[in-house]
Amino acid sequence: SPQNPPKKMLRHVVLFKFKDSATPAQVKEVEDAFRALPSKIKEIKSLEWGTNNSPEGLAQGFTHAFFVTFENEAAREVYLPHPDHKAFGKVLGPHLDKVLVIDYWTQE
Amino acid sequence: SPQNPPKKMLRHVVLFKFKDSATPAQVKEVEDAFRALPSKIKEIKSLEWGTNNSPEGLAQGFTHAFFVTFENEAAREVYLPHPDHKAFGKVLGPHLDKVLVIDYWTQE
Repeated sequence: SPQNPPKKMLRHVVLFKFKDSATPAQVKEVEDAFRALPSKIKEIKSLEWGTNNSPEGLAQGFTHAFFVTFENEAAREVYLPHPDHKAFGKVLGPHLDKVLVIDYWTQE
Repeated sequence: SPQNPPKKMLRHVVLFKFKDSATPAQVKEVEDAFRALPSKIKEIKSLEWGTNNSPEGLAQGFTHAFFVTFENEAAREVYLPHPDHKAFGKVLGPHLDKVLVIDYWTQE
């Protein structure tokens, strides 16, 4: 084909459900801490996020989705144990009810 | 700012765990049926998908992620009850152990 295929990217999908005890300010602190990670960890190629608005009722209590893109698995291997990622975990931990993480290489 | 902000998009994240009884051929039939949806439902702006390769062990058994983009909620309202979406559900249903759906408007 004369066209270049789109470059495959490694997606890292992270879902959170917060404890009922978490206040809006505490949830915002977690959101802001996650949003700050791309400025601290250069291996994050991009980040987008948002809060659930599905009408289907199949979110199993998860309210927050963070969608991280890495160029490759080497970047993820830097990210996961990175001190700034670990520090984020300390902000998150006290307020977290449950988490789900699924990663995939993009296909069309 | 002189720059246009990126356009907000409505993301629709769908995770599947298949029954242990589902054969590779049956799983592929479901994958192919989902991949065919953008050609049938014009309200799907884009689709990417992949299978879990997270080393974290937090996927709660989900193996497949399908990542659908809509321009807006009106497009989603066409998609959800669309006959071709319902037909996909009939392909999926016999092999599905569990499903999770979370939608969000993109933020940075």
